[in-house]
Amino acid sequence: MGESAWRRPEIRVLLYGVGAIGSQIARLILKRRGLRIIGAVDASPEKYGRDLGWAIGADRPVGVKISKDPEELLSRVDADIAVHATSSFLRDVHPQLVQLIRHGLNVISTCEELSYPYVVDASLASKIDELAREHGVTVLGTGINPGFLMDALPIMLSGACQEVRHIRVERVIDAAKRRLPFQKKIGAGLTVTEFEKRIRDGLITGHVGLKQSVAMIADALGVKLQRIEVRPVKPITAEKPVGSPHISVEEGMVAGLSQSAHGIVDGRAFITLIFKAYIGAEEEYDSVMIDGTPSINQKISPCIHGDLATAAIIVNSIPKVIRAPPGLRTMKDLPLPSAILGDVRSLL
Amino acid sequence: MGESAWRRPEIRVLLYGVGAIGSQIARLILKRRGLRIIGAVDASPEKYGRDLGWAIGADRPVGVKISKDPEELLSRVDADIAVHATSSFLRDVHPQLVQLIRHGLNVISTCEELSYPYVVDASLASKIDELAREHGVTVLGTGINPGFLMDALPIMLSGACQEVRHIRVERVIDAAKRRLPFQKKIGAGLTVTEFEKRIRDGLITGHVGLKQSVAMIADALGVKLQRIEVRPVKPITAEKPVGSPHISVEEGMVAGLSQSAHGIVDGRAFITLIFKAYIGAEEEYDSVMIDGTPSINQKISPCIHGDLATAAIIVNSIPKVIRAPPGLRTMKDLPLPSAILGDVRSLL
Repeated sequence: MGESAWRRPEIRVLLYGVGAIGSQIARLILKRRGLRIIGAVDASPEKYGRDLGWAIGADRPVGVKISKDPEELLSRVDADIAVHATSSFLRDVHPQLVQLIRHGLNVISTCEELSYPYVVDASLASKIDELAREHGVTVLGTGINPGFLMDALPIMLSGACQEVRHIRVERVIDAAKRRLPFQKKIGAGLTVTEFEKRIRDGLITGHVGLKQSVAMIADALGVKLQRIEVRPVKPITAEKPVGSPHISVEEGMVAGLSQSAHGIVDGRAFITLIFKAYIGAEEEYDSVMIDGTPSINQKISPCIHGDLATAAIIVNSIPKVIRAPPGLRTMKDLPLPSAILGDVRSLL
Repeated sequence: MGESAWRRPEIRVLLYGVGAIGSQIARLILKRRGLRIIGAVDASPEKYGRDLGWAIGADRPVGVKISKDPEELLSRVDADIAVHATSSFLRDVHPQLVQLIRHGLNVISTCEELSYPYVVDASLASKIDELAREHGVTVLGTGINPGFLMDALPIMLSGACQEVRHIRVERVIDAAKRRLPFQKKIGAGLTVTEFEKRIRDGLITGHVGLKQSVAMIADALGVKLQRIEVRPVKPITAEKPVGSPHISVEEGMVAGLSQSAHGIVDGRAFITLIFKAYIGAEEEYDSVMIDGTPSINQKISPCIHGDLATAAIIVNSIPKVIRAPPGLRTMKDLPLPSAILGDVRSLL
């Protein structure tokens, strides 16, 4: 396959959503051999009409103007796959996915709920699956989390186990090292009262995806859960003054947040996922602890950088999604993830 | 799928080789719902004719007598898959694989060289692939190493990387915690002179599989290596007296061995694999360090127990191999590994 890669036409990619993550993905696609961006659409008035290269902070124009009307763009260009990055929620992305599928495009999306949509809305998930099969295309939701660190990686590690009694996965991020929007998203710098009001008002949602990750792990291992408990988002307050280049957090103020989700079997947690993101975390890490036969105690330190890795996982998944059988897929169904360093076409 | 698992017939497994690893695998199969051992064959005269249960140290007979003649057994029983555990070397297992494939059995083998046989004998590997396709069956070589820790796991982790400059994988085992045959295999207790003679005489081969792991990583990432350098096996001598329940090692005597293999690109190592197994290792671990964007620094500590995990990976791969398209496959081609805790049939 590899030898004749250059003889294949380039894989034509359409970008649906050119925000912070969409832009990172686009910059990576521009570096990869065998991929070509043939169209881009974004809802933001300050973006459309601009050359994509300038909009994403690349060092050159790419000859693709950002469109505002997806239907017009889809009727005009012919793409192999859409890279979709607009919203975390299935209800928001559903009509966009339907549009892409009906036009015969494979889809890889950063939508967190799409990584395992059966636990959000089983009927909607089935409809997406059926429509994708009908049109002969594959749909995948993925990213660093959900999609990799708190689901695919513990699933992979469990493959070395004869028995599994408990799986505990932790992701701890020092938010001081992340973008300002991320720091704001986790409530850094607020009082506890303000934080709790914003949670109630839906202005702080926390990390979206723990429920999906719990469900993906359980299904991959063939374990029937009684229920998934997603605990309310809690503030983490600073024990001493901490800060980032953008935000100062006084002692007692909110430095970030903590979340957990639990997959329950026989009244006890079989899966425990802990997510913490706050300014001043003493250690950043991703850990998987499997109590089993054998037990596995795994740690990635420092934790993997979310934005860089999400863009990587999306782009690295392109040939795997194109090759996969039609339908709605999740990371547990696809072949082993891997970096792509050569021509992407050589992996088709 | 899961709901109707019990309505499917059990997956019929034939054991080819009932040595130390074959016995561990057999004990695990007996515990799994949805699998049934319907035949076993072993070349050792003290095994055949015995009930498999007693031969593998299970607590009950299983009603399967160990055969000595594979051809006779294969003509008599009808199995879905063979679990094959006889030798580390492709030339030894090749005729056995051909026999199993011709009888229409899928095959999972512990044969180290089969994990990536293209770097052992490309023509033989192609012949196995063709024969498997012709007979509509799938063939996989796997285990904890090669097959998981030093290839599949670094490949998986690289999936979170935009760029990869270097991959370093280490496996360090304290041999004091392993079986006596393992301690002998690594030369523990010998003088350096005896160790070197046994290496020359082919009595100590060291770990088999580093070359396969280097090649699997490179191919998964789409990297063309100039060459793979497998360095000679070196003794590790004890810096102070060390021992296991079975063997005492004086200062200056051989405690175990050290091996490395390197995948070279542009005259420099792009992949570095280090394997050490010796009595008295201060820390046992499995690590993957990827110098990339982002970099990933991962460690499993203590290292994963080889025998337990190899049996797990073999049995956990059964439904994935049965579902895979016909042909010779490697771990990089199959869906994400995972433990199987429910009925194996629910994953078909």
